[in-house]
Amino acid sequence: MKLENPDVVETTFHVRYAETDAMGIVHHASYIVWFEEGRSAWGRAKGLPYNDFEAAGFFLALTDVHARYATPALYGQRVTVRTRLSEVRSRSLAFAYEIVNADTGALCVSGTTRHICVTREGKPTRLPDTWKVRLGAA
Amino acid sequence: MKLENPDVVETTFHVRYAETDAMGIVHHASYIVWFEEGRSAWGRAKGLPYNDFEAAGFFLALTDVHARYATPALYGQRVTVRTRLSEVRSRSLAFAYEIVNADTGALCVSGTTRHICVTREGKPTRLPDTWKVRLGAA
Amino acid sequence: MKLENPDVVETTFHVRYAETDAMGIVHHASYIVWFEEGRSAWGRAKGLPYNDFEAAGFFLALTDVHARYATPALYGQRVTVRTRLSEVRSRSLAFAYEIVNADTGALCVSGTTRHICVTREGKPTRLPDTWKVRLGAA
Amino acid sequence: MKLENPDVVETTFHVRYAETDAMGIVHHASYIVWFEEGRSAWGRAKGLPYNDFEAAGFFLALTDVHARYATPALYGQRVTVRTRLSEVRSRSLAFAYEIVNADTGALCVSGTTRHICVTREGKPTRLPDTWKVRLGAA
Repeated sequence: MKLENPDVVETTFHVRYAETDAMGIVHHASYIVWFEEGRSAWGRAKGLPYNDFEAAGFFLALTDVHARYATPALYGQRVTVRTRLSEVRSRSLAFAYEIVNADTGALCVSGTTRHICVTREGKPTRLPDTWKVRLGAA
Repeated sequence: MKLENPDVVETTFHVRYAETDAMGIVHHASYIVWFEEGRSAWGRAKGLPYNDFEAAGFFLALTDVHARYATPALYGQRVTVRTRLSEVRSRSLAFAYEIVNADTGALCVSGTTRHICVTREGKPTRLPDTWKVRLGAA
Repeated sequence: MKLENPDVVETTFHVRYAETDAMGIVHHASYIVWFEEGRSAWGRAKGLPYNDFEAAGFFLALTDVHARYATPALYGQRVTVRTRLSEVRSRSLAFAYEIVNADTGALCVSGTTRHICVTREGKPTRLPDTWKVRLGAA
Repeated sequence: MKLENPDVVETTFHVRYAETDAMGIVHHASYIVWFEEGRSAWGRAKGLPYNDFEAAGFFLALTDVHARYATPALYGQRVTVRTRLSEVRSRSLAFAYEIVNADTGALCVSGTTRHICVTREGKPTRLPDTWKVRLGAA
């Protein structure tokens, strides 16, 4: 199901020097890591920390990522990642993200990721019902 | 212009341990770095190394990345990145990638990136004609 | 000069999934990045943000790093980096770090880094006097 | 035992753009990852690939790293990592590294790492005898 008006969870942090590259800006792969940190913050805010999910024997394997780059972030800036769960299906989830300059609000990068639920052995499986309920999707 | 039958350049290397994550597989952001290494290998193979491009005062800023994940790569495996230039416009380029297990040929990840040509100050500019000629697109 | 009773600056954050490896723990190079983030937090806390330093044409090039690993950090944990300036010389600085589990206080990693002051061209130079004053070392 | 005249294993690769930082040079943590890749190459060259070690239920947990930085590596360069096993004890190993510019031979970084043998649960254990024999240390 597509989710109507899903909650947006925000997390804010400083750009790390290691995340920059020789162009003097944040390297494009760093934002992909920030999307993931946005998901982690989303899970913590929802009372569904991802490590609990793994402890229960389920894993979310990423199947698609798309990112569109607007304005580069720089070392010395703080960024905010805004994460929302955009879709829940029986075996998959999708998230949408916006990364903005925390001080100016300027959009740096937007994107989406899609994930399937897998067992420890990597076999696709249904999202546990208890989680779907807690995700507000059952 | 869309390029007909563009050359595919291959580069092969071992998965690094640092590129894995706690799921026991290669972390999804690592493939984005491998796409970039694919572009670097492409430039070297074409006699157009990207550092020459930067030395001339031009930079390729990434504007879009899309990746689709099929089978995870693992530490202990070798992967091959297959890179082709898929489109050349006056101010932008696009590349397409396949990352496969170098021994079995199984597809790990496919994807695309789009880039615009910018000056050192980050201002969009036309790709230098000499480069378009060398790219086979002028 | 060796600094007596230098201030310790703390910064706390969640372990990122991308920072783990296939051993299921935080990859050892991630702590080196956390040392750097500790230095950044130290500069911000002292009113000496490192980007101001670079904007003034000075750079701190790392010359030595040593890290000793005690207990691995895990995804799902928060860590605290404790950073102190341990030495100031005419052209160099040293920092010392402790990274602990933010909830239990258990030591994860301790270490030191040494840095020399260089110009944009990479030439060693004296630390600017204004900075030494602000560092409490002049 | 300290090893006399241990073999040095070399591996050579191009600097990746993602490994650079806003100072325009390779980020210092990247060399720590290259040390690890040096160890991997060493294991492969010796017929002792590290993934076999893990498959047998043993892990090498890093306990110390030291790196000394001489000349920065740059994007566009190739580097060679020279790795040798410097010490073997009942439960631990040490490696030494030199990373040089592959074309000029100039030293970029030298360093050492120390590792203890642990079980999957992280408990220190003796290096398996079969491995000590194959390491030339039993």
